[in-house]
This record gives sequence, structure tokens and C-alpha cells, in this order.
Amino acid sequence: MPINISPLLPEKLLPIAGVSLGIAEAGIKKPDHKDLLVIALDDGVKVAGVFTKNRFCAAPVIVAKLHLTENSIRALVVNTGNANAGTGNSGLEHACTTCATLAKLLDCKAQQVLPFSTGVIMEPLPIEAIINGLPAAVADLKPDNWFDAAHAILTTDIVPKAVSKQIQLNGQAITITGIAKGSGMIRPNMATMLGFIATDATISQSLLQQMVQYVANHSFNCITVDGDTSTNDAFMLLATGHAGAEITSTECAAFGLLQEAITAVSAELARMIVRDGEGATKFITIQVDGGKDLDECAKVAYTIAHSPLVKTAFFASDPNLGRILAAIGYSGINELNVNGIQLYLDNVLVAENGGRASGYEETDGQQVMNQPEITVRVALNRGTTTTTVWTCDFSYDYVRINAEYRS
Amino acid sequence: MPINISPLLPEKLLPIAGVSLGIAEAGIKKPDHKDLLVIALDDGVKVAGVFTKNRFCAAPVIVAKLHLTENSIRALVVNTGNANAGTGNSGLEHACTTCATLAKLLDCKAQQVLPFSTGVIMEPLPIEAIINGLPAAVADLKPDNWFDAAHAILTTDIVPKAVSKQIQLNGQAITITGIAKGSGMIRPNMATMLGFIATDATISQSLLQQMVQYVANHSFNCITVDGDTSTNDAFMLLATGHAGAEITSTECAAFGLLQEAITAVSAELARMIVRDGEGATKFITIQVDGGKDLDECAKVAYTIAHSPLVKTAFFASDPNLGRILAAIGYSGINELNVNGIQLYLDNVLVAENGGRASGYEETDGQQVMNQPEITVRVALNRGTTTTTVWTCDFSYDYVRINAEYRS
Repeated sequence: MPINISPLLPEKLLPIAGVSLGIAEAGIKKPDHKDLLVIALDDGVKVAGVFTKNRFCAAPVIVAKLHLTENSIRALVVNTGNANAGTGNSGLEHACTTCATLAKLLDCKAQQVLPFSTGVIMEPLPIEAIINGLPAAVADLKPDNWFDAAHAILTTDIVPKAVSKQIQLNGQAITITGIAKGSGMIRPNMATMLGFIATDATISQSLLQQMVQYVANHSFNCITVDGDTSTNDAFMLLATGHAGAEITSTECAAFGLLQEAITAVSAELARMIVRDGEGATKFITIQVDGGKDLDECAKVAYTIAHSPLVKTAFFASDPNLGRILAAIGYSGINELNVNGIQLYLDNVLVAENGGRASGYEETDGQQVMNQPEITVRVALNRGTTTTTVWTCDFSYDYVRINAEYRS
Repeated sequence: MPINISPLLPEKLLPIAGVSLGIAEAGIKKPDHKDLLVIALDDGVKVAGVFTKNRFCAAPVIVAKLHLTENSIRALVVNTGNANAGTGNSGLEHACTTCATLAKLLDCKAQQVLPFSTGVIMEPLPIEAIINGLPAAVADLKPDNWFDAAHAILTTDIVPKAVSKQIQLNGQAITITGIAKGSGMIRPNMATMLGFIATDATISQSLLQQMVQYVANHSFNCITVDGDTSTNDAFMLLATGHAGAEITSTECAAFGLLQEAITAVSAELARMIVRDGEGATKFITIQVDGGKDLDECAKVAYTIAHSPLVKTAFFASDPNLGRILAAIGYSGINELNVNGIQLYLDNVLVAENGGRASGYEETDGQQVMNQPEITVRVALNRGTTTTTVWTCDFSYDYVRINAEYRS
């Protein structure tokens, strides 16, 4: 069951002037499931994105990257139920046909449409269903459709993920609203399997592209469910320019404030993906500090986060914490002095001097392990770099969900 | 349930002159479980070994490596039920006390004893139980005790693993007998969590050390269950010299023949570990060929072998083979042209040209997936290097075993 995340409409989910969203049931998924989303943009909306680094990246990823070079994007189209990945040339054709069909309905060029897909890999995209479903999605376009849009892009997710935030920039209210999906095959290497954030701030294309990479690195790129990097990851940042004066330099205070606010929205969406991770029962924050560089902090954090033994111990609420030491030990850090490491569970010092801390009592570890949210902190004590990774445990339900996924 | 592996005494399990084994119940594990093994060696037996690269390596690993430099080993002692890892200085003291106690009983020096432990990490070794149990193990010493020894070193394993083989070297019969344990925390990076192979061949210490590394790389280092490299991995090769003329050079035919035979025994034991992997229901051989070098073949093979999504698809017998493409895609190979790759399931061509092969029918994939033993073959078509990795699937029982491990 999702951990501390509400399936209800967030109290404050705000539309973004210049962005409207339309949903349809195209019949790609089982009956009574919305599976098609169109996001239409006013002329002049800036769009920047980051995509999966998986070499078997999906056809829509290839097409979206190509179309993004055009710089005058008017629409995004997202289908769920089929990833259109591992589909070769016919997959590319289907992605292009999707764009062309929507472009005709919106009276723009196919190159002004970005396609996205999520679902089963290596099965042909049901292109007829998408072509037939697009008119209904276009007819449904409206600005306050963000929550329904968050619903329409889910796959194995249980809870729709949507967040809004408002800040003041130069005395002007700026709104940021985003949605994301993802539950399994989550170990983003660029961005996660589908995040869309829009703001009405005014910013240049080049600054927006710079910002999207920073935001991804500090949000979606900090989560993992199962260590499987998806073929379809994409995170798109849209800036409509309907509010405020243009941000023209990374040096101005407004750039930093906007970047910080968008990162906050993005990190909240990213954590929601982990809270709704396949079969998750615990939300785990792994903080590694005192490292020589980011690379070694990340190696330690992800090795712990991906260890099936650590993840099943969390599922069982079993403070079998030697498994965390073992994971640190094989994480591949050069010349690691294990005697210099401290391991904490929340504020409980568990291990130091190469073994169990003298004051550690298993009852203290047990108390923390019983909680639904747990922080693991590893102090490497060999530098000043810190990193944080969010992950979840590994349960029977993860196996069930992925064993039954196509049935 | 273990896959195609018999729990019964192998028909041909041969003693090795110069090696005797004794077992006891020291009370480290639950009642009625043998948990202590002594292997006593004649004077002059050559011993070589490889050990885990985990930086949090166990106290007995540290002590055994140190004692091995002495070059006149007279005994090995193995306890199960406790890994004596993540135990700091007191763990080192306990390992030394174990050696000293056994040395007194066998009338040798503590430095002539190698200690090994396997079980829970970060819990104090019950040293009194070991001290009290050693006399019974010594009293039990006999040459034909290999199968009981294989039993005594098990942890979560279901089936004892023991193999014998005889070859002719220079007209002389040479015998090789080995045992191993391991079921979870299996991703050896040097050797697996406890393998012991003895031969009566005559060979120098330096050649034996060279051979043990080769054998490990071609057997135990080719398996993975869950990707967790243990703190206690150790693989020891013992040569008693009771049969045949001495092998003095890697150039002579006998060296190659012996190495090949020991590798065959070792690889069979390694595959038995996977067949008895925690919760395993399928035995998977992953063969990657046409790579530029061993490193990239291994990256692809282990990425497939460790993907929870691939492993749960095997558990479900679901030919959701796009997950294998996704794993290949994120394995981290430089400039991988996915259009040049072929993916086979046994002899069924599943994917090529970046997607599903035109002749592939899901019923053919389904037929292979239903089998208890499956070969995945990835043809990278960019070089001449090949590697093979053996692994198993990921089931409810893996989660259950590791959630309940200490309860």
C-alpha cells in the first residue's frame, strides 16, 4: 500500500495559463481506464526536457528529442498501456503517425508535437486505437484538468501524483504545477518515467534547458524502486511566460528562486513515486555524507537501495542491519576504511569501528524499523560531500505485481 | 524448490588421501543442526585460496588471509549460523581464539589453522559454543565424511553440494572432491561463500595459487542469485600430493588437464548453488557473445541477471521479454547500437533490428519460459568475446526466506 500519500485531489492544484489538458479512453488499457492524454500549449510556450539514457530507448523518446530541436512545441501526447519501446522501425512510424494525427486536430505541424508512451515493452503500439481516441482527448481540453491527467498516465501506480506551488518573483505571483507517474522499472538516469511540470514564469529556452537538468538531478534522479532504468523516462518542463518579466540570466535572484521552487515540486513528485512504488510498505531515505565526491556517495547509497537483502529486511521490519554493512562493503569504493564508518538508523547509532556500536541495543533498532518512514545515514568520514536517495522496500507484492503484470 | 539437483548422497563421492573431516553440533544454530566442521590436513598439503573483495570482509577472512602466508596449513575450521562479520576487534579475537583452540587439539600452531564463518552478520560469534564443540568435531575426523561436511556448512541452502571427479595425469589416477554452500547473498567477487575442493595431485604452492584464481573466475565468479556480494566468500583449493608426480610448470600438459578438471568440479558446485538459490524455481544461463571485451559482456550478463523485473518475469513464466531489452539498454555499454543485437531464448530468435523479430511468435517464447532451465543468449555482434553467467529467478519465497531469516 502506498506510504503516506493521499489518493485524493490535492487541496491546491492550480491551472497554468497557457496550458490545457484533455483525457480520453482510447482502449489501449482494459475497459474503463483512461489511457490517453493531450497537453496543448499556447504559442510561445518554452519546453525543455531530459530523457532516459537507456540505449534501448523507446520510439517516442527518439521522436520527442528530435522534435524538441524545433523549439516551437504546441502539444504533448501521452499514452499508457504500451511503451512503444523495442519496436524497431514500425515503432518510430507509429510515434510519427501519432504526432501527425494530433497536429491535424490542433492545426499545427507534426514536428510541433512531442509523443510519450508508457506500458509494456516490445509489443506493437495499437496505433488505430490512438488515432481514434485523439479527437475525444482534444474535445476534452481544459486548463483545470491536471488531476485527471495524473490519473490517465498511471500504469501499475495506485495513486495519481500531482503537486502545485506558488512563489513570488519580483513582486509577481508565479505558479508551478506538475504531474508524474511511475511505480516500477524506476531508477531514473536523466529523469523518471514521465514527469510534466508547467509554470507561467517567463524564461528563455536555453535557461529552461539548463534548469531542467538541475531539477532532474535533484529530484527524479535521486529515486529508485528496483534499479531498472526504464526505456521511456522523460521529464518535461514547460514555461508559458503568462506571468512576470523574463528571467534572462542564471545570475539573477529570480532564476535561483524559480529553480528552487520547481525542484521542490519535482522532488515531491519523485518521492510520491517511491511512496507508490510497486508493493512498497516502507519509505526509506538513504543519506550518505562525508564522502570524497558525489560519485562515491551515490555508489554507497544506490548499493544499499538496490540490495534485495536490505530491502527484504525493511519489509520484515527486521533490524538485520549487518546487511547494510555488507552492501557498503561491496559498493566499490576505493580504499574504504570500514573502521571509520558510522551507520545510523534515524538517530540510533548502529555501527562504528568496523562493527556493532557499543551502545547499540536491538530494541532501539527494532523501534525504528517498525516505522513506515526510515532514514538510513552512512557517515563515511573521509570528505565533505553528501547525497540523498529515496527508495522503498521489497515485498511479496512487488513479486506478485511483476509476475502478473501482463496477465 | 531446488532445480534439478538431488538432495541425496552422490553415487561417487571419493575421499582424498591426506584430508579428513569431522562434524559437530556446537549449538550455534537451532538444536539438531550440525554447525561446526573441521578439515584436518596431513603435513605438507598445499593450500591456496581466494576471498571476498567486500571491504566489510569478515574477521575469519582477515585471519585466514594472514595465516595463509604461513604456507604450512594443518586445518580448516568452519562454523555456520554466525558470519563473524561486522564484529570489529572482538570478532578478530574470536577468530584467533577458534584457531588457537583447534591448534591445541591437533598439536599444531594457531597460525596453521584457517577459520571460516557463515551466517548472520553483525552479531557476536558465540565463541564458548565453538570452543566447547571443537573436541567433538576432532573426535569425528575421518576421510569419508565429505557429504556430512557439505551438510554441516549449509545456512539457508536446502541441498548439500558435493562433487567428485577422477582424471588420469601421466598414467596416474588423480581424484578431486569438493563441497560448497551458498543460497543467498550470492554474487561472488573472488569466490563464493564457502567452497572447498581437495585433490591428491602434487603441485607447487605458487602454481596452486595461480590455478585457484583461474578456477574461481570460471566457476564461482560466474554465478549470482541476488547481486549481494557476501562479507565471507572464500574458496579454498587443497592439494595433498598423495598421488602422482609433481606438476612444476604451467607449460606441462598435466597443469592444463588438472586445471580443467578442477574447474569442472568447481563450476558444477557453483551451478548447484544457483539451483538451490533462495526461492529459486528456474535455472537461467545467460550467455553474451560478440562483445568487444570481457567487461562489456559481463556488464550485459549481470544487468540481465540482477534485474528484478527480468527475474520476476522468469518466476511467472511470462515471456515479457522487453524487460531483457531494457536491461541490455541500461547496462552501461558505450556506443551500443541496439539495432545490431539479437536476443535468443534457447533457440528462439526473439528480437533483432531494435525490436521484436519478424518471425517471433509469443507461443514459442512461452514454450521456453515454461521450462525449469532456460538459456538467454544475447549476440552483441561487435566483437569476439563471450561470457556466461548462471542465475535463478526471483520468487515469493526469496522474499519470505529473507524476511524471516532471523525469526
